[in-house]
Amino acid sequence: MPHIALPDGLPGIRGAMAFRPETARPLNELVEVLLCGPHTLTPGERELIATYVSYLNDCHYCQSVHGAIAAAHLGGDEDLVRRIKADFQHANVSEKLKTLLAIAGKVQRGGKNVTAEDVDWALAEGATDLEIHDTVLIAAAFCMFNRYVDGLATTQPRDEALYRERGKLVAREGYVSVSRSYVPAETAAR
Amino acid sequence: MPHIALPDGLPGIRGAMAFRPETARPLNELVEVLLCGPHTLTPGERELIATYVSYLNDCHYCQSVHGAIAAAHLGGDEDLVRRIKADFQHANVSEKLKTLLAIAGKVQRGGKNVTAEDVDWALAEGATDLEIHDTVLIAAAFCMFNRYVDGLATTQPRDEALYRERGKLVAREGYVSVSRSYVPAETAAR
Repeated sequence: MPHIALPDGLPGIRGAMAFRPETARPLNELVEVLLCGPHTLTPGERELIATYVSYLNDCHYCQSVHGAIAAAHLGGDEDLVRRIKADFQHANVSEKLKTLLAIAGKVQRGGKNVTAEDVDWALAEGATDLEIHDTVLIAAAFCMFNRYVDGLATTQPRDEALYRERGKLVAREGYVSVSRSYVPAETAAR
Repeated sequence: MPHIALPDGLPGIRGAMAFRPETARPLNELVEVLLCGPHTLTPGERELIATYVSYLNDCHYCQSVHGAIAAAHLGGDEDLVRRIKADFQHANVSEKLKTLLAIAGKVQRGGKNVTAEDVDWALAEGATDLEIHDTVLIAAAFCMFNRYVDGLATTQPRDEALYRERGKLVAREGYVSVSRSYVPAETAAR
């Protein structure tokens, strides 16, 4: 049961966002820019970083929904999502993405863990400063989202089909658009 | 030295935000709502929560600047800020704020650490659901900001006078207004 009276029927962060639309708006705008905006990393690659950090933070809701969004972007490849969590160094992704996932994993444990060598490896695999910046911020942001979702003890369904459906919707329409369906019209219109 | 080429002369998160104004905008809006918006917790109390979490995460820049903003809101009481970090249970703040700081400390270690008992204690001291929600989100957000600032190895001056000056400015003008001075005009105007 959630720690506070969140609206019924909205799992995970969606209940928390409906409870507090004033903070939901910048939170949705942040993930929209980071995960859906124009970028040299694909939306699927960025969702994999978000999923991996949520997995490290043991947040069931976030790793499930972002894993599903990642899979939707990657042609339904749920095996790849599982492999990223279990052992990304042997997953079928670029060497560049592996160096970025390594940086994300360091950020999850605390920002000071990222070393100049971690960044040099990413640069050597062709990562840009913007890609490194966004990897750090995606990892940091999911350390926020995971704590927000778990710190309020939000409802987190176990039915994978629900996440798969949500994943397809968000992959198609984006965060800001989808969030308008549960944020009051006045707030959504701002 | 920062891990990527951040603009010169802007310490801590300010350099990172100037590098990426697209993400700076929602980040500033988020702290503006959480720390400066209309609220039953004073801005000083909310800044103390942000400072305490930044201290637990060992982020020099964030604990210094938010400690200075808190002190500016609290009539210059820097001793109280130091006491909150060292031993908030014996600081001269309300019992309610102590229960919220305890929740924030749990969130810093991971959202699942917050228990129903922690929340019951806060409710028994008169905390509202909104105050508990915002405490969780402030704590979670600073787990992001601290990792963002340290994960990029941003420049973090040691001169306390710089933070004191910045603290007074932000306490007076707020985050969104102050951030316009280093975010390109086109972005700031959106």
